[in-house]
Amino acid sequence: MPDVHAAIDRMADDAGALFDEVRAATADISGVTRDAFGAKETAAGEILIDFCRGHGLTAGFDAVGNLAVTLGAPQAESDVILASHLDSVPRGGNFDGLAGVIAGVLALAAVKQTGARGARDLRAFGFRCEESPWFGTAYLGSKLCAGALARADLDKLTRFDTGRTLAEHLAALGVSLASPPIGVPQVKPARIAAYLELHIEQGPLLLSTDTPLGIATALRGNIRYPYAKCLGHYAHSAAVPRHLRRDAAIATAKLIAHADERWRALIDAGNDDLVFTCGILHTDPAEHAMTKVPGEVTFSLNIGATADAAMEALHGDILQRAGELAAEHGVRFDLGARVGTPATRLDANIQAVAADAARTLGIAARSMPTVGHDAATFARLGVPAAVLLVRNENGSHNPAEAMAIPDFMLGVHVLAETALRV
Amino acid sequence: MPDVHAAIDRMADDAGALFDEVRAATADISGVTRDAFGAKETAAGEILIDFCRGHGLTAGFDAVGNLAVTLGAPQAESDVILASHLDSVPRGGNFDGLAGVIAGVLALAAVKQTGARGARDLRAFGFRCEESPWFGTAYLGSKLCAGALARADLDKLTRFDTGRTLAEHLAALGVSLASPPIGVPQVKPARIAAYLELHIEQGPLLLSTDTPLGIATALRGNIRYPYAKCLGHYAHSAAVPRHLRRDAAIATAKLIAHADERWRALIDAGNDDLVFTCGILHTDPAEHAMTKVPGEVTFSLNIGATADAAMEALHGDILQRAGELAAEHGVRFDLGARVGTPATRLDANIQAVAADAARTLGIAARSMPTVGHDAATFARLGVPAAVLLVRNENGSHNPAEAMAIPDFMLGVHVLAETALRV
Repeated sequence: MPDVHAAIDRMADDAGALFDEVRAATADISGVTRDAFGAKETAAGEILIDFCRGHGLTAGFDAVGNLAVTLGAPQAESDVILASHLDSVPRGGNFDGLAGVIAGVLALAAVKQTGARGARDLRAFGFRCEESPWFGTAYLGSKLCAGALARADLDKLTRFDTGRTLAEHLAALGVSLASPPIGVPQVKPARIAAYLELHIEQGPLLLSTDTPLGIATALRGNIRYPYAKCLGHYAHSAAVPRHLRRDAAIATAKLIAHADERWRALIDAGNDDLVFTCGILHTDPAEHAMTKVPGEVTFSLNIGATADAAMEALHGDILQRAGELAAEHGVRFDLGARVGTPATRLDANIQAVAADAARTLGIAARSMPTVGHDAATFARLGVPAAVLLVRNENGSHNPAEAMAIPDFMLGVHVLAETALRV
Repeated sequence: MPDVHAAIDRMADDAGALFDEVRAATADISGVTRDAFGAKETAAGEILIDFCRGHGLTAGFDAVGNLAVTLGAPQAESDVILASHLDSVPRGGNFDGLAGVIAGVLALAAVKQTGARGARDLRAFGFRCEESPWFGTAYLGSKLCAGALARADLDKLTRFDTGRTLAEHLAALGVSLASPPIGVPQVKPARIAAYLELHIEQGPLLLSTDTPLGIATALRGNIRYPYAKCLGHYAHSAAVPRHLRRDAAIATAKLIAHADERWRALIDAGNDDLVFTCGILHTDPAEHAMTKVPGEVTFSLNIGATADAAMEALHGDILQRAGELAAEHGVRFDLGARVGTPATRLDANIQAVAADAARTLGIAARSMPTVGHDAATFARLGVPAAVLLVRNENGSHNPAEAMAIPDFMLGVHVLAETALRV
């Protein structure tokens, strides 16, 4: 499709301008904050709606609040979806999520400009709330799109900063809480021939191997405890002997130290993509003092891997050790709700089509696993799904994310070519 | 001195009323907060000044801001000081510090009422800022009283919540920053025949041995790092493999776990009064997330013992392990300023006088070590110093401190008798 690729080449400046405009509209003290089901996420969507309409595409927020873009009236029996998410973590970077949404929009704009049509209708989405800090769990916008979130769940989920439920946030965006649209797919899974998502790489592999693009083989799953607590007893730091203490900080520290030791052992045993993170760890700022034995610690646990068995092994070790430490230190571990997603294999046929598209276009790409993305929502419903990764410096979820626009444009070429070929 | 003890017996209701009045004036959401060199500490002092004046004592805030009480014009060549502190930790209990101040005031009021005089003049003090959370270090009021705090130090110390320096806090209380009064003793150490302090026990020993009073043999010293940091690098919780992480939470957890292990070993080796506390431990609330490898952890370290060698042994182990963990995890430990006080022996002669006084009065008392108190400031200047401990439930530095008024009154009897005998 040479016309489409020429059109994409002419959009490199548009791409840079769109990233800059969204960054400026969603800037925080450092980095960007596009709050899930909130004002800054909406602001990002509105900028893209303006761009789409300017390029003759049909665009708006759909019945469940996601940014939805089409070429116009449907002509084919099935769809290819190009999507990613609009939200960011608090004070995150500009490219995580947004890159895939802009890539889909540019691919549709290029196709519209040239009049090219594949065998399928092309649709782009910008999902809300892929990031889990906001409501303690991930993929909420894509789950609403897929009809995979029930009405009852909307009241159970609360945003950490506003204290408001997902139901309240949706109502404020003008979304009806009836079914439909809640619990009913915006696009029937059977209509979806392929779900394609472009995303920045969030690790250092492409950079360290000098490769602009990756084609994902699987999505890491995770086992998470967002709001775990260790409950002990406050006491004077000097007057109470060790054997009478119930020190929540020491017990929690020993749990994390043990998890790290087991993590290393499981990597040595061959589970080389297993990851463990305690991202949140704190004594109670309203009560703690250097001179008090801490009676409470709040923390998060986050285990990830492309193999469920490796995650379960580390998870089991942590639970067992928590029991031992509770007895040894006279504390109680209340890990709270376990959340997370299983590891997900991606579609082998689309991976082959994408690899062939990159080869045809003369663009280097390597196969590799990646972390969870909205693609997981569709893959789990049986939709053939694929993820393209773009080289990116400094990881993600931080203001220093650094994706070069030329790398991004290579990704848009492969994304569009794959979308037209599947 | 039977008249004095009869007068003390008649003051039991006054004691309960004074504790209640100060508690009401300094109540916080839970417990009490008497902020050091601040309004609530002053409020506590003013209640006692009113009481003293009502009983014919001379009372007011002295040139360095402490509550100072005398029987009137000096008559003897030397003084016996009865003192403790007015401040509390944030959301602490009502008795830590205040008990010793009220005990001194009641002893002076009883002596005044009966006209009894010992061989020395009696003075009582209510020191400001004994608790270290406020300015990161302890005994500031008693050090000002003893002339042991230099003008330059007043600008170096900053209160954790107001962000203002000690110099600014003193100026707001109307204290002149010139010398005198700064750096010059309010009572010359050579004039002080004895420094006596009553304080609640902050551990469970008196309760568990069914004894109302303790006579302290030594004050635990401490080695403290109030504002330690571990600095790593923020990264995506799933996309970065273990060997490329610089995880500040795991490194800090392993440091604390190691300290606990060494602490237990040192206790097993005979250092049975060694204590270790990490009272403050937190990732950065402005940056942390379940899905981010934490790049920074803030924490406190607090080691205590009546033997300096035991503290130094644990301290050395912690520093060595911090170096190893920095190398292993690619982080940097910045422990900040080391503060603290050496362990302090108390005066054997006064201990014997106090034990004899208790025996004469038929009150059970046992010898035991205790934690740091303002007495340390004077003991280190060569002043003969002693500490009387009163049985107390639920430890201290928390709202549940529970000292019974009858136990307290036994302490006032022994305190007054000792003051008149030395």
